[in-house]
Amino acid sequence: MLMYTTAPELTEAYISTVWETLPRFIRSTLLLPCPCPALAQRFHCDVTIASETFQYTGSFKFRAAYNLLSSIPHQRVVTASSGNFGQAIAYASQLLGKTCTVVMPSTSARVKIEAVQSYGGVVDLIDVQHVSRAERVAQLLHEQPDAFQAQAYDDYRVIAGNSTLGKDIFCSDTFDIVVAPVGGGGLSSGIIIARDYVQAQTEIIGAEPLLGNDAARSLKSGHLQQNAQEPQTIADGARTVSLGKLNWEIIQHGMADIIEVPDDLIIQAVRHCFRYTNLKVEPTGALTLAAMFAQPERFAGKRVCCIVSGANVDPALYAHILAQ
Amino acid sequence: MLMYTTAPELTEAYISTVWETLPRFIRSTLLLPCPCPALAQRFHCDVTIASETFQYTGSFKFRAAYNLLSSIPHQRVVTASSGNFGQAIAYASQLLGKTCTVVMPSTSARVKIEAVQSYGGVVDLIDVQHVSRAERVAQLLHEQPDAFQAQAYDDYRVIAGNSTLGKDIFCSDTFDIVVAPVGGGGLSSGIIIARDYVQAQTEIIGAEPLLGNDAARSLKSGHLQQNAQEPQTIADGARTVSLGKLNWEIIQHGMADIIEVPDDLIIQAVRHCFRYTNLKVEPTGALTLAAMFAQPERFAGKRVCCIVSGANVDPALYAHILAQ
Repeated sequence: MLMYTTAPELTEAYISTVWETLPRFIRSTLLLPCPCPALAQRFHCDVTIASETFQYTGSFKFRAAYNLLSSIPHQRVVTASSGNFGQAIAYASQLLGKTCTVVMPSTSARVKIEAVQSYGGVVDLIDVQHVSRAERVAQLLHEQPDAFQAQAYDDYRVIAGNSTLGKDIFCSDTFDIVVAPVGGGGLSSGIIIARDYVQAQTEIIGAEPLLGNDAARSLKSGHLQQNAQEPQTIADGARTVSLGKLNWEIIQHGMADIIEVPDDLIIQAVRHCFRYTNLKVEPTGALTLAAMFAQPERFAGKRVCCIVSGANVDPALYAHILAQ
Repeated sequence: MLMYTTAPELTEAYISTVWETLPRFIRSTLLLPCPCPALAQRFHCDVTIASETFQYTGSFKFRAAYNLLSSIPHQRVVTASSGNFGQAIAYASQLLGKTCTVVMPSTSARVKIEAVQSYGGVVDLIDVQHVSRAERVAQLLHEQPDAFQAQAYDDYRVIAGNSTLGKDIFCSDTFDIVVAPVGGGGLSSGIIIARDYVQAQTEIIGAEPLLGNDAARSLKSGHLQQNAQEPQTIADGARTVSLGKLNWEIIQHGMADIIEVPDDLIIQAVRHCFRYTNLKVEPTGALTLAAMFAQPERFAGKRVCCIVSGANVDPALYAHILAQ
């Protein structure tokens, strides 16, 4: 039975409600069993890819964003995100008739700023040399006291929203292992509660950039660890300083292990996805496949589901990765 | 009622059998309704993409290849193809326990040669300065008189196999227009017979490279036309000299129009797919979207299904297209 001290609201009844109501507003994940013979041969195992690249706004974050915003009465939403969560919040706000402001560094890629704007979000550019994202969000909330601050991972409604990806996976087939990317822990904790909710025996293994391995260190030490600063891994969706508190509580007890992935394997995995699976994958989305490249022996003979979490990558960076 | 003088075997009963038996050996197409708000706004219409990029071997050709090879008793197969049909025939042969030889120009991209080999096909490289593909196929058939020559489009079993993509489309929703790429006519004729079989009122519009516009000229003149030589369009899947005879008979009576697409719009459509739909698409696969770019006014207010036929593109070429 699910019970978390950090979030007593995260009950089986709540998950059941989310699983019943959310799916009509989101896209089911694309399950690709045995996406390429080369992959199966290489790992001597039975791989299925669960791809969120065709989810609304191009990543799993829309599951969380829509679930979160559909459960609050506020008309105004504020969040800080230079990536997929910002786009997801912007589009969910648009669909739900809310207005939203996304705080982004002025150095953000133009394509990311335009994406938030194309979904109707107001982009608030800040010079991070002078003001931090958290400070600017606090300022905005002071100016707009009726606004709601959307958290990207440390919120039970976010985790429950993400757990619907676990529903898609566990209700489709039986797997020995599900590999999930780990940044703030929003997705991987969602997959764990989904696994526990359906009482599957599947091992959940995390895939985290070696350059920002706070979660792996936390799991090893039994205490929540932080990175000294935002890690400069190519997997920009996992540039988090530490796991959220609720995410840590769930991961600490529910995750079998975390594989630390060097950036060169992430790049190799993006290329592999292009060539052998025809998936356009962002570096963070390729973390899980890269984890399999890093420790192939762990997966031999297993039925493995590898989560590809998103596709939002700058065309110039992607071209550069392909040309390498 | 279906009746074609060129292929009396192409009956409703035969199509019914193929639609019943083939789907368990192939992947259903990926239907993406309203893949991006930008697309809908641009065309003032309701666009669905039907993507064959996750079909086995990365293109719709596998539907034809498997249907063709599963209906013949021969153990040996010979074909000439530098592209998607070769890969599809190689993989279908492997699955059906046959051996296959694919004749390819020695100048073919290494990635294409390796793809055929990875599916178990024997690649027969020829110097097209000294021997034509047809001559080499004839030589091989002389050496192996018990071998079967697989035709890429001018065969009723190929067309019926491709018609199962039409089944996926017409059985999923109602469309005013389906846009299909036109090379040898194998796919578009399959979509037409599917439309007629289910008695839908949908218009089928072809999308053909302007640089190799034999089919468009044929439809306008009412007589089968040829290109003087293999057209050097970037859409390498449509580098055909003319439609097949049976394909022409079907297209002549069943296709509403063919839009001639300049190469620059094909390139733009590949980039659009990358950025707004997260689909990795080969140039030939982007022909249909490029046709919408070429004549947007034709599609205003309509429910349109755009077929994205395949994803097999050289990484270097793709990187070059993105970087432009």
